[in-house]
Amino acid sequence: MKPLFIVLEGPDASGKSTQLRLLSQALSARGIPVLATREPGGTPLGQKLREILLDPKNRMRPLTELLLLVADRHEHVEEVIKPALARGQWVLCSRYTLSTLAYQGRGRGLPFGLIQELNKLATGGLEPDYVFLLDLPPQVALERTPLRDRFEGEGLSFFTQVRLAYLEFIRSVPHGYVIDATLPPAQVTAEILARLPLSGYDFVVKEGK
Amino acid sequence: MKPLFIVLEGPDASGKSTQLRLLSQALSARGIPVLATREPGGTPLGQKLREILLDPKNRMRPLTELLLLVADRHEHVEEVIKPALARGQWVLCSRYTLSTLAYQGRGRGLPFGLIQELNKLATGGLEPDYVFLLDLPPQVALERTPLRDRFEGEGLSFFTQVRLAYLEFIRSVPHGYVIDATLPPAQVTAEILARLPLSGYDFVVKEGK
Repeated sequence: MKPLFIVLEGPDASGKSTQLRLLSQALSARGIPVLATREPGGTPLGQKLREILLDPKNRMRPLTELLLLVADRHEHVEEVIKPALARGQWVLCSRYTLSTLAYQGRGRGLPFGLIQELNKLATGGLEPDYVFLLDLPPQVALERTPLRDRFEGEGLSFFTQVRLAYLEFIRSVPHGYVIDATLPPAQVTAEILARLPLSGYDFVVKEGK
Repeated sequence: MKPLFIVLEGPDASGKSTQLRLLSQALSARGIPVLATREPGGTPLGQKLREILLDPKNRMRPLTELLLLVADRHEHVEEVIKPALARGQWVLCSRYTLSTLAYQGRGRGLPFGLIQELNKLATGGLEPDYVFLLDLPPQVALERTPLRDRFEGEGLSFFTQVRLAYLEFIRSVPHGYVIDATLPPAQVTAEILARLPLSGYDFVVKEGK
């Protein structure tokens, strides 16, 4: 089976990093080679862009923000994601194109068509095989994190719009699933694993023992 | 008369910074309010992007580089250039859209159509009123500067291509002029001033004295 490209989406504090770790462990335990990564910041260059993007001291226009995010994405797709998939690794990625549609499209008000064009330019058309939206009411997300970065400073109405956009867009994603991120982490992991095509891998590992 | 947007183009070591200073002085002396600026790096955010773009330690793909440059340009156009013109200041800018066509198009091999689209997106269609190409043979440019940034490390054939592209593109720019950058700085300034519509300003200043 070809390696899968799996994306976790959702607001800050929805548990994406935790799930990245728990899913990596669960897949590795089945003998699946996994690379866990994130956007923005999945490359050395991207890490510098992430610092610029998240620093609340940096003012920038919405289109400037979008262009920096797709620059980060292009470098990440070409230097990290595609090479990993080509080596046979499954890729688990925190945030991808849907985040940009939700945050920069609905949140910042940039045209969706423009975002889709720039996403396509940056990714060369690479789409995830599975997308899991870790859905969280904005009130819960804001309670979970002290305000700390440029996005988290946007407040409740911004995140309400972002959530609605996420819930709308995920419906048109093939193999796109909404997961209740208020569940305990282990249960969230189980919900995700239940939707992945893992039966073959279970079988191979058992047979090999 | 509406304030003019004047761009200086050309390779590193062609004297753009020097001319920016000399032209600012010459225009100010005629009573013209002037803002001198540059790309990349004409805003606080752009300065951070400039450091990333020029640092030879940073590897990045050509399209990543292009996206960072147009992000810098968008911020610069909207936050610096347009507001200055709106206030009635003339704007003198070192590097603009032609640099991107020459370096990222001819130098890096990215499609010209894509660069033009992204330039248009970044600038909202704002074109300079005058463009002066400070033309320098690449051998002279390389002799003038010790190799010091990510672009200057590219060598003679890269800069030969960039020069040819500059000379080709400047021909289709309305009020685009090629200036011999091997001339002494004061003479370069005189060549530029001779092409600007300054007679009215001379007159006004003389009358006012």
